[in-house]
Parts: sequence; structure tokens; C-alpha cells
Amino acid sequence: VSPRRHRAGGDPLPAPGVVRVQCRQLAPRVGDAEGNTRLILDAVAAAVADRVDVVVLPELATSGYVFETLREAQELAITRDDDLFGRIGELLPASTVVVLGFPENEDDTLYNSVAVIGAAGCLAVYRKTHLWDREKLFFTPGDEHPPLVETAHGRLGILVCYDLEMPEMPRSLALRGADLLVVPVNWPVVAHPAGEKAPELILAQAAARVNGVFIACCDRAGTERGQEWTEGTAVIDQYGWVVAWPEGHVATADIFPALAREKAISARNDLLGDRRPELYTDLGMKA
Amino acid sequence: VSPRRHRAGGDPLPAPGVVRVQCRQLAPRVGDAEGNTRLILDAVAAAVADRVDVVVLPELATSGYVFETLREAQELAITRDDDLFGRIGELLPASTVVVLGFPENEDDTLYNSVAVIGAAGCLAVYRKTHLWDREKLFFTPGDEHPPLVETAHGRLGILVCYDLEMPEMPRSLALRGADLLVVPVNWPVVAHPAGEKAPELILAQAAARVNGVFIACCDRAGTERGQEWTEGTAVIDQYGWVVAWPEGHVATADIFPALAREKAISARNDLLGDRRPELYTDLGMKA
Repeated sequence: VSPRRHRAGGDPLPAPGVVRVQCRQLAPRVGDAEGNTRLILDAVAAAVADRVDVVVLPELATSGYVFETLREAQELAITRDDDLFGRIGELLPASTVVVLGFPENEDDTLYNSVAVIGAAGCLAVYRKTHLWDREKLFFTPGDEHPPLVETAHGRLGILVCYDLEMPEMPRSLALRGADLLVVPVNWPVVAHPAGEKAPELILAQAAARVNGVFIACCDRAGTERGQEWTEGTAVIDQYGWVVAWPEGHVATADIFPALAREKAISARNDLLGDRRPELYTDLGMKA
Repeated sequence: VSPRRHRAGGDPLPAPGVVRVQCRQLAPRVGDAEGNTRLILDAVAAAVADRVDVVVLPELATSGYVFETLREAQELAITRDDDLFGRIGELLPASTVVVLGFPENEDDTLYNSVAVIGAAGCLAVYRKTHLWDREKLFFTPGDEHPPLVETAHGRLGILVCYDLEMPEMPRSLALRGADLLVVPVNWPVVAHPAGEKAPELILAQAAARVNGVFIACCDRAGTERGQEWTEGTAVIDQYGWVVAWPEGHVATADIFPALAREKAISARNDLLGDRRPELYTDLGMKA
């Protein structure tokens, strides 16, 4: 009995070799745009010095997260052609990629967005499609599928924070051929039993394992307007195990994304080929 | 911004009160049908003495798991009207439910099935739809959605072992209104990092949390033909936390399944209502 093998669509990409992934927890401050820009550029420069291939910074890194009013969010929002992205690109070697969150303004509509930046400029922007709690007061949810960005370091699937808690999202990206999910987050501290990880990390481990993909989550550091963050930054391998925790707010792992292209998990099983889509039809129904 | 609320279809069921769930790890022996019957009937009698409402026994409890040949599996398979199920039913108070696995023979085709038994007889049979490894040598996968069994103790969704590792399966049952997923399993020991749970348990925790449902997994005990089992039996609450581990191979929890009917997780979020089915259309595509 040979397993049914899943093959992602599109032309095959050359499999990348070893890829250095680094997540840098930052502590941006609401209202301090210039200070936050400095934090971001310093973090990118430090990652470049560490010879990192894929740099991950938090959700809403340019602005901070805990807005008090819509006006405040509007004042801190930037456009996707903001000068900052060019300044980041200028720091990068040819194949290095930086992923970071920012509040995006387009025609006075705000989105909780993530930019994927390379040396040549912006490779993709994703607008978070599943908004968490008070974000709904400020942001409009994106209406497009998350991007799958083809890079020298593999296919990067982009999600933001609560998106990852919808199992359909990492599943969709795995089916499309993602090797590594890059997930800027802002995880507020929530209670959990002693001896357990933060629940968001358990969900990330499960998402990695059931889909056979690597996941890099970059959380916030510090406290913002009284809100504490889990500091749950982690790089997770394709089996769901954490291979890098933050040390001094920096988590670094050398991973081999080509392993995400092998979905066989036994002589007769394939993580994605074993799916029975004809039994999942009710997942498409309107909730 | 009010959250979009998910409501499962069908008439509302009265919410059950406190429900006692008990999983009993057994160690059936291949080929010892009469001994396995005794193990099962003794386990059910003991659970009834413990005033259990929902009793969960392992996958393939009547037969054992590690078949050497198709002929052996055929000889140990039984039909869904086997006398055993009536004998179990005779032990049960009016509202008690027993869930256990058996190799089902219908017209010389074998299925890895689970029976849901009440005092009045068999309430449902589910044929595992995602087969693991050598099971494919013996069994035909089921072609039907897993059952949602309406009982005095809530709506029970039934899955078997590897089914639970497909995130679409618990998701579908949650959307249909399941309160408690009942999952007979046979989890072979697999390597995992020190300090981590068995990976199947991490997936079960995530499935419970993202869907807001309770999950009761009943694993095997002992060693069978050299195969060791994780003994990962657990009852997991609707937040994904383990509320009962086995003590002497028996895990018991008093749960309140009505909590699974509240999917709000913030003032503005609903676990199922937050879904964006229009973005998940590729999940239905053929793998």
C-alpha cells in the first residue's frame, strides 16, 4: 500500500540548504516612532552581523500595540511605501529577508499588516485576516490569502498572531508548499497551568507537526501600558519541537527547510496525502 | 464590534450537567478473544461502579493491534451485531455510554471501527477514515463522516487515533456542535525531547483549545508483540489543559460539557465565528 503523496502546485524550487532564522523580541513604545525605527534598524543590523538569512520581528513593531484611541492608531499608521522599508532593505545582503509588522494606512483604512523586505525592496505585504479583540476597534481585516514568498531560503508563508490559532491557516499554507511559517505576534500573558508552555506555543507546535513545516514566532518583550507579553518567541522544527528559545530576547536556529518538503511520516503515510478532502467539505460552510 | 457567533445546526439540546468521563487503558492480547472480552466487561463493570457516565476504552480493544497477517486480523474481526455489544449494554445504567474499538467485518471487508454502546444497544459505529501505517494492510478506510452522538451527557464526537492528527477532523465535529470528542487510540511510543509530552498529546491539547471542546483519549497499556505504547491516556478540557492522567491505568474527570457551547474567547472573539471560510477554500481541494 503506497501512500498518496501530496505535491504542492507550481514549479519546483531548488531546495535551500541550511538557513539561519533569527527572531528578535523588541519592546517598541506607542508614540515613539523614531525610537521604534531605531530599535528596528539596530535589530536588523545586528541580525545581519549574525549572518542571519530570515529575520523575524514582532507584530506592529513600528508602532507598539496598545492603542488608546483610533486617532492614535491613525497617527502611527504608515503606508507600505514608507521610507522605513527602503532603509531596512539598504542594510541587507542580497538574499536576506526581514519580516516585521506595522499598522498600514491605505486611503484612511487601517490594517494590521506585515511586510516582507529584501535588499531590493518589499517582497510582499500581508494584512492580518483574523483580528484579535481590540484590534477590531482600529483595523479592517485583510481579505486576501496569506502570501507564500519564494526566497533563496525556501518558501515563506506569512501569518500574524491569532491567524495561527485557526488551524485552517497553517494547513492552507502547507498545502500550497510553505517550508517555513513566519509569524510576527504580540502574545499577551494568559494564565496557564504550572509546567505547561504558553498555550499559543502549544498551538504553534501542533501546527508545525501536523503540517510538517517549520515555524518562527517572534513575540514582544517588556511591558506596554501595563500589558505584559508572554515573550513566547520560538523557532519550531517540522516535528513540532522547539529548537530555539530567546536568549537575551534573541532566538536563533539553523534549520534545513528542505525537510519540510518530505511529508512521509511512515512507510505508508503522508501528512498531507493522507487527507480526505471529501470528508472535510463542511469546513467551507459559512460559520 | 460584536463577534460573529457560531451556532451549530439542529435543535438545541438541553445542556448536560456534570459528566464523569473515565478512560481505562487495557492490555488486550492478540488471539485471546475470550480474555479480551473479560478485560472489557470487567472494565465496564468497574466504571459503572465508579458511577461513570462516559466510559472510553482503547482502539481495537477486542482484538489487540499488532496483527502479523491479514488472516489473523480476519479471524479476530467481528460484526457490529456481535454478542459482546449486547453483553456490555446489559451492564449499563440507562444513560451510561461506552466507547470502544473493534475490528469490524462486513462481507469479508475489515474496518478499524469504534462502537458507541448504551443500555439499549449500539448507538453508533464509526469506521476510522485515516489509517495508520500497517493498518492499511488489513483495513479498508471508512467513507463516512464521524458520528456526532446525542446523549444525556452531551454531543459526543467520535474519532480514532490518527484521525485526530488531521486538524480538519476535530474542527468538523466542533462545527457540527460536538461537546466532547471521544478518541480510542493505540499510540506507539515515539521519541520526543525531555520535558515534552508525547506529541500526540500536544496535538490533542491544540485540537481541544482551538475548537473549545473537551477530548478524552484512551490509549493502550503494556507491551504487545514487542510494541510499547505511550500510555498517553488523558482527559483534556476545553482550554486544552489535561485534567486527568491515568492512575493505575484509569483516568477519571468530572467535566461540564456545557462549557464547550460557549465559544467566546474575548469580548470580540468567537473561536468558530472568527473563521474566514472564504479564505479556506483550498482546504477542500484534492490533495
